[in-house]
Amino acid sequence: MALIVQKYGGSSVADASSIKRVAKRIVDTRRAGHEVVVAVSAMGDTTDELLDLADQVAPIPAPRELDMLLSSGERISMALLAMAIHSMGFEARSFTGSQAGMITDATHGAARIVDVTPVRLREALDEGAIVIVAGFQGFNRDTRDITTLGRGGSDTTAVALAAALNADVCEIYSDVDGIFSADPRVVPKAHKLDHISSEEMLELAANGAKVLYIRAVEYARRHGVLIHARSTFSSSEGTLVLNQARREQLAAQGEHMEEPVVAGVATDLSQAKVTVIGVPDVPGKAAEIFKIVAKSGANVDMIVQNVSAATTGRTDISFTLPKTDAAAALKALAGDQAEVGFLSLVHDDQVGKLSVVGAGMRTHSGVSATLFEALSTAGINIEMISTSEIRISVVVRADDIAEAARVVHTAYGLDGDTEAVVYAGTGR
Amino acid sequence: MALIVQKYGGSSVADASSIKRVAKRIVDTRRAGHEVVVAVSAMGDTTDELLDLADQVAPIPAPRELDMLLSSGERISMALLAMAIHSMGFEARSFTGSQAGMITDATHGAARIVDVTPVRLREALDEGAIVIVAGFQGFNRDTRDITTLGRGGSDTTAVALAAALNADVCEIYSDVDGIFSADPRVVPKAHKLDHISSEEMLELAANGAKVLYIRAVEYARRHGVLIHARSTFSSSEGTLVLNQARREQLAAQGEHMEEPVVAGVATDLSQAKVTVIGVPDVPGKAAEIFKIVAKSGANVDMIVQNVSAATTGRTDISFTLPKTDAAAALKALAGDQAEVGFLSLVHDDQVGKLSVVGAGMRTHSGVSATLFEALSTAGINIEMISTSEIRISVVVRADDIAEAARVVHTAYGLDGDTEAVVYAGTGR
Repeated sequence: MALIVQKYGGSSVADASSIKRVAKRIVDTRRAGHEVVVAVSAMGDTTDELLDLADQVAPIPAPRELDMLLSSGERISMALLAMAIHSMGFEARSFTGSQAGMITDATHGAARIVDVTPVRLREALDEGAIVIVAGFQGFNRDTRDITTLGRGGSDTTAVALAAALNADVCEIYSDVDGIFSADPRVVPKAHKLDHISSEEMLELAANGAKVLYIRAVEYARRHGVLIHARSTFSSSEGTLVLNQARREQLAAQGEHMEEPVVAGVATDLSQAKVTVIGVPDVPGKAAEIFKIVAKSGANVDMIVQNVSAATTGRTDISFTLPKTDAAAALKALAGDQAEVGFLSLVHDDQVGKLSVVGAGMRTHSGVSATLFEALSTAGINIEMISTSEIRISVVVRADDIAEAARVVHTAYGLDGDTEAVVYAGTGR
Repeated sequence: MALIVQKYGGSSVADASSIKRVAKRIVDTRRAGHEVVVAVSAMGDTTDELLDLADQVAPIPAPRELDMLLSSGERISMALLAMAIHSMGFEARSFTGSQAGMITDATHGAARIVDVTPVRLREALDEGAIVIVAGFQGFNRDTRDITTLGRGGSDTTAVALAAALNADVCEIYSDVDGIFSADPRVVPKAHKLDHISSEEMLELAANGAKVLYIRAVEYARRHGVLIHARSTFSSSEGTLVLNQARREQLAAQGEHMEEPVVAGVATDLSQAKVTVIGVPDVPGKAAEIFKIVAKSGANVDMIVQNVSAATTGRTDISFTLPKTDAAAALKALAGDQAEVGFLSLVHDDQVGKLSVVGAGMRTHSGVSATLFEALSTAGINIEMISTSEIRISVVVRADDIAEAARVVHTAYGLDGDTEAVVYAGTGR
């Protein structure tokens, strides 16, 4: 008998028939002899509808009240799910974030989990019940107020429950079969990974892959939770996300833990490139520029500084940042143009970022050469490059990003034998 | 400075603009220098929509989960209301039933309030905040589960809060101007009452008047809470519902407390009449019949036994009961026909009950004579009669009920000078 935590997102419980299908899946797990704890999101578009209502009554909703409002969404889905299970003849009990002991700080809208005290959940499990917990929400002990965890909160709820209950596995269900070596909508020959390390998963997620939330993966890595990303719509195995300790443990047990040099390719079209032209080539100018950008609230990703043209004493500095941050950053820079002394600004939102991620890069050489050669052969120009210990990212034209992903995927030997099945939906 | 509890029903907070209107009304009360505690129902049709969802996932929803589900409705409306007030520049905080200290027994779906410990509400008031509380819901201490109070629960929440906080008044808002001497849709000359005693209100509510819930009025009577029934859509005074102690207190203060012989006329078309024909006229037969009816779950109201016809040794027994209980009662009686020995059953669902209520009946004679004479003059036949200390009820043909109400209303001198304004909607 194992203790299994399962997480179902909004699209998995969008209506009554989806809820009944999920209930059946949960009951099947219980029937197999396992203890089951489920974290569930609000139904389909509920959260958006509630946000819309909030917007109608108050231009800037009070954060405490917004959390109170939004947390009602999971209350609805979890009660319906528990009812559906109950009517299949199994004992099921739903718990709000506070009833489940999900203790957070007091940051409304983006609360951090500070402790998990699942006393009532453990009691319910001991009494043979299936436990349903509201995802996305918690409770602050000092203010005694309801909080919400922010984007991807239900994934984090599931992982935190798995850690606190010492679960054998945390299954994160969505409408895709698992983690792929690339986005199958971009690279049709992408193949599903049987396993991936937490570190690789974090790099992929941070660079455009949208299957799991960074925060949940990070929490799982830190607490040694085994994540199993799998599909609500199929019973086939998904992808295991393992931290290093778990990996070594499995390897010691003789499990075949093949570690490819490159695990996957991620693409990201959400960034823009800003070039500051004619920056005086004197010490401290780069710092000055990025202080201005930071103050505008923009999150800078990659930075490239060209070699200074000796004749002019000036250089160009390019950086990427989320498209949504670009306007504020440009405005801030333009306002300080005279002090900094640069000549002009160029804004380019037709760029795409391609990232190649693999723990094997630590020990294998020639990884970047393969990347550059593949792109060069395809006639795709590289505009910027950045690297981390297990990742190489390049910026190319947005129009080239899909082809770039395909040729790179092939170059690293990642192509599967068959085309991946792509489901409708967002994968969340 | 007074402490005012206000209750707004679902139709008063049906959409964003209604919520903003209610928020303005609450803010106006706060601006006038009062402390304000608000009990609010779920928005418009929310509860019905949630019940519909429950029905889709489970034929017989688990009661604990149904309460968890339904209680989310008030969570939505209260958070939106608090936001709306907040955006008008006033501090407002919403509280769930459990946060508000609404302690109940563990009867899911129809929980009784056993204690109210509004510690957090008092703290919030002391900090100058307007307090918004989810109506209809509570919390059981032993099971630590959410409960709901059943039909009319939000009225009860408001009255219970008023009692626990020692409020000066409990204002129950709806879409009618207050308590009328009759239903204005039936009796156009009905007039709004300035005040009514709790006892009269209870008799009117129990006999078809739909403005206030019996349970809330009873709670108010027991705890000495002054109810003010008034309209969300007008600022005019509504009707005060006073218990005897409050009445005497006001009278002692020299307030004019005119006590009419008859306060109001109520009509009820929800009952059916069953006649058991040819019951053997021997002791114990009536007891036998009503034991059978009670076992079927039916709630018998009025009973009439005809004088026995000496020649046959048999008599007829008629009784009224809610139309919805009639089928079960008839089936039970038919099943036991041989043992009881009656000849046949007659079911009549074309009856109406007219009730005349007034505390003055205790001390005035001739009240029933006026009723009988008015009906006789109008050519309306009386089929059954029952009385309490402050009420006379008669059963007439359903077709006659409206005219009966009008002539009786006139006969007791209750007609107002102008026709009452009737709003669309149900009065809830």
